[in-house]
Amino acid sequence: MRGDGRESLQLRPVHIETNFIKHAEGSVLIAVGDTKVICTASIDDKVPPFMRGGGKGWITAEYAMLPRATEQRNIRESSKGKLSGRTMEIQRLIGRALRSVVDLDKMGEKTIWIDCDVIQADGGTRTAAITGAFVAMVLAFAKLLEENKVAEFPVRDFLAATSVGIDPQHGIILDLNYAEDSQANVDMNVVMTGSGRFVEIQGTGEEATFSRAELQEMLEAAELGIRQLIEIQKNVLGTLAEKIQYDAEERVKK
Amino acid sequence: MRGDGRESLQLRPVHIETNFIKHAEGSVLIAVGDTKVICTASIDDKVPPFMRGGGKGWITAEYAMLPRATEQRNIRESSKGKLSGRTMEIQRLIGRALRSVVDLDKMGEKTIWIDCDVIQADGGTRTAAITGAFVAMVLAFAKLLEENKVAEFPVRDFLAATSVGIDPQHGIILDLNYAEDSQANVDMNVVMTGSGRFVEIQGTGEEATFSRAELQEMLEAAELGIRQLIEIQKNVLGTLAEKIQYDAEERVKK
Amino acid sequence: MRGDGRESLQLRPVHIETNFIKHAEGSVLIAVGDTKVICTASIDDKVPPFMRGGGKGWITAEYAMLPRATEQRNIRESSKGKLSGRTMEIQRLIGRALRSVVDLDKMGEKTIWIDCDVIQADGGTRTAAITGAFVAMVLAFAKLLEENKVAEFPVRDFLAATSVGIDPQHGIILDLNYAEDSQANVDMNVVMTGSGRFVEIQGTGEEATFSRAELQEMLEAAELGIRQLIEIQKNVLGTLAEKIQYDAEERVKK
Amino acid sequence: MRGDGRESLQLRPVHIETNFIKHAEGSVLIAVGDTKVICTASIDDKVPPFMRGGGKGWITAEYAMLPRATEQRNIRESSKGKLSGRTMEIQRLIGRALRSVVDLDKMGEKTIWIDCDVIQADGGTRTAAITGAFVAMVLAFAKLLEENKVAEFPVRDFLAATSVGIDPQHGIILDLNYAEDSQANVDMNVVMTGSGRFVEIQGTGEEATFSRAELQEMLEAAELGIRQLIEIQKNVLGTLAEKIQYDAEERVKK
Amino acid sequence: MRGDGRESLQLRPVHIETNFIKHAEGSVLIAVGDTKVICTASIDDKVPPFMRGGGKGWITAEYAMLPRATEQRNIRESSKGKLSGRTMEIQRLIGRALRSVVDLDKMGEKTIWIDCDVIQADGGTRTAAITGAFVAMVLAFAKLLEENKVAEFPVRDFLAATSVGIDPQHGIILDLNYAEDSQANVDMNVVMTGSGRFVEIQGTGEEATFSRAELQEMLEAAELGIRQLIEIQKNVLGTLAEKIQYDAEERVKK
Amino acid sequence: MRGDGRESLQLRPVHIETNFIKHAEGSVLIAVGDTKVICTASIDDKVPPFMRGGGKGWITAEYAMLPRATEQRNIRESSKGKLSGRTMEIQRLIGRALRSVVDLDKMGEKTIWIDCDVIQADGGTRTAAITGAFVAMVLAFAKLLEENKVAEFPVRDFLAATSVGIDPQHGIILDLNYAEDSQANVDMNVVMTGSGRFVEIQGTGEEATFSRAELQEMLEAAELGIRQLIEIQKNVLGTLAEKIQYDAEERVKK
Repeated sequence: MRGDGRESLQLRPVHIETNFIKHAEGSVLIAVGDTKVICTASIDDKVPPFMRGGGKGWITAEYAMLPRATEQRNIRESSKGKLSGRTMEIQRLIGRALRSVVDLDKMGEKTIWIDCDVIQADGGTRTAAITGAFVAMVLAFAKLLEENKVAEFPVRDFLAATSVGIDPQHGIILDLNYAEDSQANVDMNVVMTGSGRFVEIQGTGEEATFSRAELQEMLEAAELGIRQLIEIQKNVLGTLAEKIQYDAEERVKK
Repeated sequence: MRGDGRESLQLRPVHIETNFIKHAEGSVLIAVGDTKVICTASIDDKVPPFMRGGGKGWITAEYAMLPRATEQRNIRESSKGKLSGRTMEIQRLIGRALRSVVDLDKMGEKTIWIDCDVIQADGGTRTAAITGAFVAMVLAFAKLLEENKVAEFPVRDFLAATSVGIDPQHGIILDLNYAEDSQANVDMNVVMTGSGRFVEIQGTGEEATFSRAELQEMLEAAELGIRQLIEIQKNVLGTLAEKIQYDAEERVKK
Repeated sequence: MRGDGRESLQLRPVHIETNFIKHAEGSVLIAVGDTKVICTASIDDKVPPFMRGGGKGWITAEYAMLPRATEQRNIRESSKGKLSGRTMEIQRLIGRALRSVVDLDKMGEKTIWIDCDVIQADGGTRTAAITGAFVAMVLAFAKLLEENKVAEFPVRDFLAATSVGIDPQHGIILDLNYAEDSQANVDMNVVMTGSGRFVEIQGTGEEATFSRAELQEMLEAAELGIRQLIEIQKNVLGTLAEKIQYDAEERVKK
Repeated sequence: MRGDGRESLQLRPVHIETNFIKHAEGSVLIAVGDTKVICTASIDDKVPPFMRGGGKGWITAEYAMLPRATEQRNIRESSKGKLSGRTMEIQRLIGRALRSVVDLDKMGEKTIWIDCDVIQADGGTRTAAITGAFVAMVLAFAKLLEENKVAEFPVRDFLAATSVGIDPQHGIILDLNYAEDSQANVDMNVVMTGSGRFVEIQGTGEEATFSRAELQEMLEAAELGIRQLIEIQKNVLGTLAEKIQYDAEERVKK
Repeated sequence: MRGDGRESLQLRPVHIETNFIKHAEGSVLIAVGDTKVICTASIDDKVPPFMRGGGKGWITAEYAMLPRATEQRNIRESSKGKLSGRTMEIQRLIGRALRSVVDLDKMGEKTIWIDCDVIQADGGTRTAAITGAFVAMVLAFAKLLEENKVAEFPVRDFLAATSVGIDPQHGIILDLNYAEDSQANVDMNVVMTGSGRFVEIQGTGEEATFSRAELQEMLEAAELGIRQLIEIQKNVLGTLAEKIQYDAEERVKK
Repeated sequence: MRGDGRESLQLRPVHIETNFIKHAEGSVLIAVGDTKVICTASIDDKVPPFMRGGGKGWITAEYAMLPRATEQRNIRESSKGKLSGRTMEIQRLIGRALRSVVDLDKMGEKTIWIDCDVIQADGGTRTAAITGAFVAMVLAFAKLLEENKVAEFPVRDFLAATSVGIDPQHGIILDLNYAEDSQANVDMNVVMTGSGRFVEIQGTGEEATFSRAELQEMLEAAELGIRQLIEIQKNVLGTLAEKIQYDAEERVKK
């Protein structure tokens, strides 16, 4: 039994509330245990300069924490005047992950801005952000489709993320909270699609290392968790989910 | 009748949810119509360098908006690397306003950090922030009192804020939403105490001016609104409100 | 009697020297007691991006202090690499105030850049800056008119500013110097037009509050001072003053 | 055959020149094909504030490219005034990787600053930086040991890194050059120890995904490459290598 | 005859007004033709960290231009958030020059902050700044002596600066104004002491070169000008000048 | 005999390795004793905004040090977020010096970006940078000529630089290393052309002064050194040198 009463391979309770922010084309509040993130998707009718004239779309993400999302208040990056390396790493990860399941050619020259703002943090903020941002992005694309601003639905597959790690006491554990994350020898974030393919694997042994067998076991745990997260996304998205599902299956057949 | 169906001197619906963020010593989510602000109060066991050794406490505030709080996505100040003049003006105002109803000498050498993060904006964000931040601050002081870290409750009076303005169509109106704010000739923010004294008056005629009579009428409208806001604060604070009430009345008698 | 021998409602000696800087289209050195500010008005033949194509002009202001304008040398904002909140607040105020008496439509797509540089500070620098900047701006418009770059004189009324406050010893006082400003419980800056209308009121109780009656009395004191300041502006501007006067009176009649 | 004549799983020629910079406690010039990186290790007799008093050491890394290391000149980060997300991600990775094979407790309160400056870039700069920085770090520790500033040699194992990827034409390939990196669907950086354990795995499908079987195959290719890199490190380090070897074997036995 | 009616080797009219800013320990307004600079000297009772404990004093300078000192308004360096290379070069030059005639050992651990703010520019701002700053600095040291905060007068010699150049039409000319400076092939700034020794020579051929003979002639012209500037300084400083004079002569004798 | 065994007027050994960086249009590694600088010349097909449409070319330079080029590691300017005054001064000097021997009209609207990165420092980095950058620039122009992107070779003369100084023990010395530079009373950098004309003279007495006779002697020493440096450049440049030589002689004849 883990500190919060969970089994080794048990996720925390997950809730996704859609249309949380009225102005955004897509938005959710995702809660993974006590980690809570507001994810919005905003449509911009142009692409970054380096992509202009190419006919393709772009998806980019920004990530931040409210100062008191954490146990100790942290200083705002706007006050410090620069983003930390951690923030930059996370926002690059979120953007890359989302782009992997979108057919950018079908978007036209538009940008989807994803904003993930952590309002309460208890470990796993980046994976919660990806899982929630996927839903916000789908909602924004649904709006574009409804308004005939894209010809086809450009989302090819589901996408969710979770963390796994090796705990000194409990061995391999799924979906680490903050206390567990601080103690783990190895910490791995996994992003996966609905069809079970990897998009991103980031495994890190902070002052520690891990074997191939341990890696294998961690990946299996992650897959287990991600399948459940995608079920939750499907429930939330309703008929939109069926549309993605269908596309993904068609793709696998080919 | 105003655009959203209100009378000239009618506030929007106001809700204050306390303890919204688990880590903060005090926190609320305040909604004034569609304007929603997370306000947290964090306790820091030291004061800024210029106050050290003086035995007094300090209260300081930071204010920000999520990028998609607004109709058009706005660029993060952390990405721009600097705070706008508007942000600085607002955070200085919030800090100053809160300090006016706190007996800093009774706090000891502590700082209360107030963070007001607008998650959805529809006009009046700075006044909603002040009204909500007051409640978050009271909760933090209650915690300090409970833990015997202050000897006396240092909050001397209630504090709330609202906006008034002169609308080309409806004349003087109370609690402007974003659409009204954009059209108003004159815009005034008023911060007031529970005993009806002014803490801050900021009246601005953007490409317009106003007479002494108009000023008078606006101040009366503001007072009307602020009294109602303070009633809502009292309901939310329960027995803590009685404590402040008592102190304020004692002070008036003297 | 106040510390410097003045009566409660007496202004400090005011001098305005025009054409102080040879390159600027309009310039003054204004001295209000020991507070000295160089104000220049520079004409720029374009407007900011957000206004292009609208046919209207724009007026914007910057404010700074020389490092040794103050009793203790202060660090340059160019060395710190960013503007303080105080500087931003003041420069936004100056720009807003000047725009309120100018018919931006009559300017064409031009920007007037106002620069207010305090070379010696003794309280009231922002109000001295507004009073001086108004004269510099009028001189720049006169030049535009002379060169037929505007069809009509776009200044609709006079504009000046002063401060009032509540002093623990002397009660309500006008035009606070630095020593008085440091001790005052309440500090209010008032910007007013020649026809006696308010443009901006900023009243602040730093760790204090004020009643409606006190507010009333402060506003009367401010009006008294501003009338005298406008007389001084009229003397300095000579025939240009008559032109503004005439326009303002015509407006009042309508 | 790949574009530059290599087999799929063949490394580029690797050269490591030690003591390349006379002032540094440890330094190398590492060339992996046309990628050339100067790595220095500098000893600092204190640790960062958050570690003071803990008795442990710290290793931190910085990474940069000369402006003309690349085919198109890139703008200096010192001119832009901030580090890119890519730079931050890489320098965090290098530091983390090196710390995983060092017994920080045996270092005492010292910091090793690793600087990796790419003077010519042709893909794989971050993995070349890790492989080279390990050697520079070992040389710096050797100097500390020689001068009796550490009691024991704190390096526990070898460490090297390489990249693997999936190429649309050649399938899984090892040690991608710039042209290959630009075309690959999947790109994975692997950091491994001399005893064959993972330290860091970062696999990314940019607008693509990968299966568990592909992951398996990529990891095997990476291991093959890293074993060769460690042989090269051993040759360069001579008797110092034997010392690390011995420690690593002892550790495995336990 | 030059554009403004001067002979080749004639200085512009020079005026130095002392005690121009009431708060500063030493201050002047220096006018060299239409170039006007406010120079203040501020005493700080500590030295920079790298000098602490050495018993010596330090002199450092900052230089800036008001935005409308020039014909075209220039953007404030505080708005740009960084100092230009030109500003940095000039302020390093002023500090270095002043330090060359002061016995830093006799100052004790104090810093003199020199601020040179150009309020109107017409060429030669850096040399006017040095000539004026010397006087401001002497006044500040006189104040320290008067208050017994230094035991001896630490200024060893006079110091002034001027520019010389090669003009396509008039050959070698002294004290270039802005129009001349823009056209000159060679531009040289010379800083010299009262006893005729060089402190700084900066000769630059912008897209041009100069011979040894031309150099010789320029240095003679500069010496001629500097002697006159030092006479003006002596008149302004009165009895203080005699003190420096005496010291300088004593030194030459030895 | 100097500390490193040299005579007073003896240069350190100088080596110039051309084509050191494969991507750059021109590049060298220059070693002057233990001072080593990588100089690259990059061609950009446009000029800065202020020069557009004028038909002329531009040459600009950037200068930096690797953190461990020096005995003590120095903090990266990219981490500090701004360039030091010293860096700015040096890069302005390098650009200005190179422009003086190039016929910008013959370049067409192109920019040559010069990057000088010091990888090991032992005094005289700015003069080594100029001497090396000249060769890199010539190589880049040779490439432009070869590809018919310039009609004529625009380099008019050779250019090299060295330092001279007055040492308390050895009197006037040539080409100061770091230890000598730290002790010298007077330090002068001289940039000269192949035809013996000055381009730049920067002589500085840090807390010291120098006479006209000393200046004369220093300039002769510098000329002696620069002649030798230009011989080395000629050897390295081979037939390209003859081309410049011829042009320079033709110019002298006229």
